[in-house]
Amino acid sequence: MLNQTAEYALRAMTWLAMTPERLVATSELAEHTKVPPHYLAKVLQQLAAADLVTGRRGVGGGYKIAREAGDITMLEVIRAVSPVERIRACPLGIESHGTVLCPLHKRADAVAKAVIEIYDQHTLKDIIEDDSPTPLCHARPQELGLPRQNGNGTANGHSPDA
Amino acid sequence: MLNQTAEYALRAMTWLAMTPERLVATSELAEHTKVPPHYLAKVLQQLAAADLVTGRRGVGGGYKIAREAGDITMLEVIRAVSPVERIRACPLGIESHGTVLCPLHKRADAVAKAVIEIYDQHTLKDIIEDDSPTPLCHARPQELGLPRQNGNGTANGHSPDA
Repeated sequence: MLNQTAEYALRAMTWLAMTPERLVATSELAEHTKVPPHYLAKVLQQLAAADLVTGRRGVGGGYKIAREAGDITMLEVIRAVSPVERIRACPLGIESHGTVLCPLHKRADAVAKAVIEIYDQHTLKDIIEDDSPTPLCHARPQELGLPRQNGNGTANGHSPDA
Repeated sequence: MLNQTAEYALRAMTWLAMTPERLVATSELAEHTKVPPHYLAKVLQQLAAADLVTGRRGVGGGYKIAREAGDITMLEVIRAVSPVERIRACPLGIESHGTVLCPLHKRADAVAKAVIEIYDQHTLKDIIEDDSPTPLCHARPQELGLPRQNGNGTANGHSPDA
């Protein structure tokens, strides 16, 4: 449902959505999101290629979110790193099937449709403004004393997730 | 949504559901379901371990479905070869999260729930009795002149998928 790369991408994007106005170094992002640094570097390149983050190399460099968190769906993040698609034609390439799916692929496509619809309904803003008592990974940036500046200024009152 | 092993398992089980009263050799099953023979042999072992098929080795050996097709859901077949589970506790093992999911995993779990519900709604009987004009893979057993004996005797009138 959510492969490891997609999960890493979502964790990284969620953190960057919480710190939208500063560059976050890959090492810092890796620490907060608990993603292995080398793996994260690769994921960030894919997110940059999909225009979801912008980055700057070198000292003081890092990544920041490229657009408003409310404008980026979970689906878009997942698709930046792994394909999540409807089944439009026979995956076996059986010519006579064409776009008429067999009973098996028809049901697999119904599942793909449901998955896509759910992930498309939720933006990164929904995630960072969710009132769950358990924030992403370890804590929210402001709980770690990090600058946050997410534009709406409404800090939430959750206690740190130590 | 449906990894390759799960897809192979479903194709094999669907074919065996259409030929429930005879042993089908792995090589024959591989040909009809278009699954690589060595891969299929491994999948069949997993299906046997999950009590979904029974097999006999040696000359004249092969596999047959272990239960009624109407009693086996797609979900059961998929779970025999790969985990499809709800997210019950923090996948990162963050102790303070426990079973209270973060906003990200809460949504991933909603997707898992939807996927499980859909695959649990459909049995192998639903698949083989579906009136899709495109049968599984290449054809139905009876269209290849193979014995079928699926118990209900209601052959369908679809033309071969040549």
